[in-house]
Order: sequence, then C-alpha cells, then structure tokens
Amino acid sequence: MSSKSNKTVVQKYGGSSLKNITAIKKIAEKIIKNHSEGFKIIVVVSAMGKTTDQLLHQANKIIKNKSTNKHNRDIDLLLSTGEIVSATLLSMAINSRESGVTSISLTGTQAGIKTNLNHGSARISKVEISRIKKELNSNKIVIVAGFQGISQTEDITTLGRGGSDTTAVALAAALKASSCEIYTDVDGIFTADPNIVKNAKLITHLSFEEMLEMASLGAKMHPRSIELGAIYNIPISVKHSEKLNKGTIIKSGTKKMEIREVVTGIPTERKISKITINDLDDTPGVAANIFMPLANQGINVDVIVQSAGNKGKTNLSFTLSENHLNQAIELLNTSNQINSKNISSEKGLAKISIVGTGIQNQPGYAAKMFKNLADATVNIEMITTSEIRITCIIKDSDIEKAAQVLHKEFFG
Amino acid sequence: MSSKSNKTVVQKYGGSSLKNITAIKKIAEKIIKNHSEGFKIIVVVSAMGKTTDQLLHQANKIIKNKSTNKHNRDIDLLLSTGEIVSATLLSMAINSRESGVTSISLTGTQAGIKTNLNHGSARISKVEISRIKKELNSNKIVIVAGFQGISQTEDITTLGRGGSDTTAVALAAALKASSCEIYTDVDGIFTADPNIVKNAKLITHLSFEEMLEMASLGAKMHPRSIELGAIYNIPISVKHSEKLNKGTIIKSGTKKMEIREVVTGIPTERKISKITINDLDDTPGVAANIFMPLANQGINVDVIVQSAGNKGKTNLSFTLSENHLNQAIELLNTSNQINSKNISSEKGLAKISIVGTGIQNQPGYAAKMFKNLADATVNIEMITTSEIRITCIIKDSDIEKAAQVLHKEFFG
Repeated sequence: MSSKSNKTVVQKYGGSSLKNITAIKKIAEKIIKNHSEGFKIIVVVSAMGKTTDQLLHQANKIIKNKSTNKHNRDIDLLLSTGEIVSATLLSMAINSRESGVTSISLTGTQAGIKTNLNHGSARISKVEISRIKKELNSNKIVIVAGFQGISQTEDITTLGRGGSDTTAVALAAALKASSCEIYTDVDGIFTADPNIVKNAKLITHLSFEEMLEMASLGAKMHPRSIELGAIYNIPISVKHSEKLNKGTIIKSGTKKMEIREVVTGIPTERKISKITINDLDDTPGVAANIFMPLANQGINVDVIVQSAGNKGKTNLSFTLSENHLNQAIELLNTSNQINSKNISSEKGLAKISIVGTGIQNQPGYAAKMFKNLADATVNIEMITTSEIRITCIIKDSDIEKAAQVLHKEFFG
Repeated sequence: MSSKSNKTVVQKYGGSSLKNITAIKKIAEKIIKNHSEGFKIIVVVSAMGKTTDQLLHQANKIIKNKSTNKHNRDIDLLLSTGEIVSATLLSMAINSRESGVTSISLTGTQAGIKTNLNHGSARISKVEISRIKKELNSNKIVIVAGFQGISQTEDITTLGRGGSDTTAVALAAALKASSCEIYTDVDGIFTADPNIVKNAKLITHLSFEEMLEMASLGAKMHPRSIELGAIYNIPISVKHSEKLNKGTIIKSGTKKMEIREVVTGIPTERKISKITINDLDDTPGVAANIFMPLANQGINVDVIVQSAGNKGKTNLSFTLSENHLNQAIELLNTSNQINSKNISSEKGLAKISIVGTGIQNQPGYAAKMFKNLADATVNIEMITTSEIRITCIIKDSDIEKAAQVLHKEFFG
C-alpha cells in the first residue's frame, strides 16, 4: 500500500496465512491498519490450512467410484463451506477489535460471483458488484469467501484448486481496484526454487506473460488469475502475509521493455512421468483419440511432443504427473486404435525451464541452456519451447545439479 | 411409511443419526429403500454430531465480548456450513449406492427457505418450492441443509438450536406432504424421562398442544416445529433412526378426544434456579423493567409467579437456567428500581409437570399430584398451571422420587 487515498484494494489470503485462530487475529489487525490508512478493502480468503483436503477426505470415504463425475456438484457445495468458515471467522476477528471499523463476510454467491456450470473448475462469467459496493459505501471491510461462485441454475460451483487467486483478481477487475495483493507464506516469486537453488533471488517485477509461464511451471498462483490480470490490466503483487517486504509485482507496461531479453526465472517441477506411443497412424483424429479419454478422467497432460516416424506412422510423447501414470496407461491399453506393444513409459523425471520475454528470438539462450546441461552431464529427454520459455525434460535425480548450473549461468 | 403410493414425505435426521460416515451410509440405504417404496422424499439434515458446538468453539476463541450481538450475522453464516456439509455427504452416499436413484443436496437458500432477519432465531416467512419441485419431478431425492434460510436482504440466517425440525415441518407444509418424520436417537416421546423413571412408557399418540408442553418442558423437539405442525395440520412422527418402531405420532383430530382427561406425560427439567424479588412497587412497567434487560442479554426466563404483597408492594419469583443465574443477578443489581437487599436466589431446583388435555378442568389431577408429592415428603416451592399442564418447582435432589411416585400414580 503506497499512498493514502480512498483507493479500492483487493487482498487475498491463502490457507497458510489463515492456518489457525492466532493467524486469523494477526491478519485482522493488518487489515484494520490498512483500512485506517484510507483504503477501501475487499479481502478474499481461502479455506483455513488443510480444510479443503480434510473435506475431500470425508467425501472420499463415501465415494466408491472416483472416476465418475456424478458427485461433482455435491463436492463443490461441500468444499465451498471451507472458505465460508474462514471468511466468517476473519470478519468476527475484525469486529472484535473494537477499532471502530466493522466488516461483513460474504459467500461467493452474496459477493455476486457468477460462473458457468463446470463443477470443479468453473469459470467466472460475471461479477455483480452491487452488494459489495453497498457494504463498501457504508465503510465496511468486505470479506469474501474465495474459490466459489454460483451458476445461472443457482448451483454452487468452485473454480478449481487455487481458485481464490482468481476470485481476487476478478473482484479487483470488476471493482476497478487500484491493485490486487496476494498474501502467501513466501516472499514472492523467485528466480528458481529456493529449496533447490540456495541463492535464488526474489523477482521484483514480472510481466503477466512471464508469470503465466512461471505459474504453470511450478510457482504458486492460479494461472487463470494471471490471465485475468493481463486482460483487465490489474497489477498483482505477491507477498508474504507477515512481512513488510514489497514482494513481486506482476504488471504490464514499461517493465516488459526493461527486462526484455533477460532470463527472468528458472522454474522447475518434479515427480513427472512420460508416456511414449510409437508407430501411431499419422491421420487426423489420432491425437484427439488419445487425449480425450485422459481429459475426461481429469488427467492433465503437460508437455506434448510429436515427432515424425516413417511409412505414414508417427511417434508421440507426453508428460503427466506420476500419480496419474498407471491410470493413463490403463486407459490407453483399452483403446482399439493403439497397439499396447507400442506404449512405453518412464517415471522419475523432472522439468526445468528458462523463462524470459524475448529469449525465444535469441538463439544464444537455448544454446547456453543445452551447453550448461551437457557440461554438467545432464541428459535431455524432451525439449519444448514457447515464445518466452525453453523447457527440458530431464531425470529427476539431475534436477538440483541442473537448476544450480543454469542459475549460475543466468544470474551469476 | 404405511402405504405404497406416490406420496410426498419429509424426513429429518438429527446430528446423532449422522455422527460419522458409517452412520451417514446407513441413513442413505434407509432413504433409498423408502424411495423404492414409491415415496417422493425430501430429507432435512442437521449438522453431523457435535459440529455446531465445534464451530461455535472456534468463534468463541475470537469473540471478546460475548454479550454483544454484532457477531450474530457472521455466526449464522458460519454455523450454516455444518448442515451443508452433512447434506452433501449424505447426497454422495446415496449417489454412490448405484441403486438407480439419485439425489441432490440443497442449501437452505437453494431450498427456498425465506426468513426474517432475526439472526440466531430467524422465523420462516415463506418457502419457495419451485427448485425442490423441479428436482422431485426428475425423480431425485432432495437433501436439504436444515436450520438455515435466507432473508430478503440476502443474508444467511439460522432458526435457532434444533431449528432443523422446523425446517422439516415448514417444508412438509409447503409441499403438502402426507407426513413429516423426525428421526432421532431415541424411540419417541415417553411418559417420563426414562433416565429417571425406569418404566416410562412410549407415547404412541399425542396432540400438538400436549407436545408443545412436553417439548418446552424437556422433550427434544424444536417447539416452533410443533406450532407449525398444528397450524398446517401436518402429522409429525418422532422415531428412532435405526429401529423399525412406529415411535410417537403427533397430530390433531380424533386422538385428542380419546386421550382427553388422561395424563399424557410427566416431563421434568433439572439444573434450574430461582430468583425472588420482594417488596417491588406494584405499578405498571415494573415487570418489564425486570425482564427486558434479561431478554436483551439472551437470558430465558421460564416460570414466573407474582404474588400479592402489602402496602402497594408485590413479590415476584421466576426460574431460569443455573448457567444464567449469576449474570441475571448482576443485571438486577444494577437496576435503580430494585433494592439489592430485596433480591434472593436459590440454586439446585428442578421442574416437574403433569401434561394432558383437559386435566386443568379436573381438580382431581392437581390434588392427586400435590398429595403424592406430599406423601413422598417432596416440598413444592412454586406452582404454575396452563390449560393442559400443572407444574411444580421442587428441589433437584427430590426429582427422582417425585417422578417415580407421579408416574406410578398416573401410569400404574
């Protein structure tokens, strides 16, 4: 919070910042202080600590066939209670302070978060801000249960894991807030995973495009919140909920030019596996036949590489989480378009990328990446690239060595 | 459930019937069986086991000044999550059975329960049944989160402890259901507390009026549910959730004539205390000055007896829960219309009544009650009566003896 004015600010607190009553009381004081500085404040909360996992654990004791989606509606309604509980407790903590400031807790429905009916990963279609506006105008702090909304059919939906980030940015966009602050239990976004690279540095500024690559490659923000921030041009700051640091600011504009042609970060992801299918017919619809059944079972596929074979045949490799490997292979084995003998798989892999606006147009960056990995005797199994990212799939046992040499090369 | 037809039935399951996942699965099977018998079924659920107490415990770790009502809105929203969780889990349990029958869970809001804005003890103003009708028409079992509703201002309200009973009867009335079944962990309503009188008998039929006296004198049903049942003439049966017995049926009509001039039951209540104020000015407004401050602090007063004093002065005694005694005396001491020296109090009391339609018009019943207590050397401290009830306040240490002699007298 940089200036004293009657600006509207959306703050989001994750489950780790709300892990118990003591933590909630701390956050309450912080919010009251911000309000006293002259801001109109909307707070979006996640469920406390591990609440969502605990609710899912209860549901899983009941659900027999986990692959069906007939429970999705009930599960969404169940999970929505976690954020409602933390919103009400935070509101009580603010109202208990006797600071003269009052707050009100709202469900996603009450906050006007309208979504489609895609249970488990619903998308926000609209935010009706009349109720929030009314409460802000009576000088209240508005606490909104994140992660949830309501469909046109008046069913409760959830936005998917991490969806409270997206609630926060959507509210910031609808309310034309001056900023959206995502509070978490780390200092911000780093140049590499600090658990792997000890001297990883905090990134102070990032473009939305870079953050999208960082987010989907391991950093902890809901990718859709970044997309929304980019579309509505809402500056997002990611910072530690208990420290006074500035964290990482994600925004468009001049920053992009300043950091152009520089590596921004080296995201990594572990525990991934690879499936390769050889000698596929190289005809239209083959890829769809492979990936649709996986998608229908909620199996996310990440990197996909197709290489030319011969005699009208092609080879296809893709990565996925190790948790999903066995289920995916079973599904592929039942396909009558794939010969089971042609399916092979590998576990114990990891993904490492360099991300930075413009690096794709500079051949030097890819070459430097491959050379450094080779010098460290790290074998590259797959390569993919995007406009601002170069990604290598390597053995998981090589990941620390790889991250350290690349961090040294690009950040000294 | 007595006949195979496409009748609409509302069933309510309390927290003790839904205390864990195993219990929820059992209830699911029972409901599916009832549905297969041709009934349209709406199920109202309470929060699982001690959930409501646990949520309140969390809130109380935050709230500093418990006597203020500024937290009531947040607390209602918090508590409403308990019933939503049990509704979703029960629905999943039904949908997991692969019985061909499906169910849907609805919040109080989704079920159309409209209330006033009296947080903590809201009253139902209207039930909009369109959503429930739609789901019933597609042959679904409808599971409704009890105890909650939504106000005209779109705030979530709760109906007060035990309010799920009232949700169930209100839905039965709005849907013109053929009956409302309240499932609990006891066999029904008894002629006396079975913990005190070993040979207490199950009452098979009761009038609404009698049940109102029984409910407010210790038996476990939300009194407002009985009032609603009487107004809309909905037969209510109270029975054990795991047994096949018929329980107690509460309804109007011929039963009233059959049981006229017979004692129906002997309700008791323990841990009550008494406050007496002597030498009060016998002028208008004195009683209001005493009871309004107590009501504002949520202190329920039960039996009130005023007796004539002399010289324009009067004496007033009333009973209240032992928990509230100290707070009540403090409040009375601060009143400038009462001389503190005139306030006295007594703990360790109990209440015992005989209830039955018409007993008030038959002097014999009161006389028999007093004679039996006297013979057992039970001293009577206060007496009050209603149309169908005679109540005595006695020492708590005498309650077992008193209940046993009266039960023997009236039930043999």
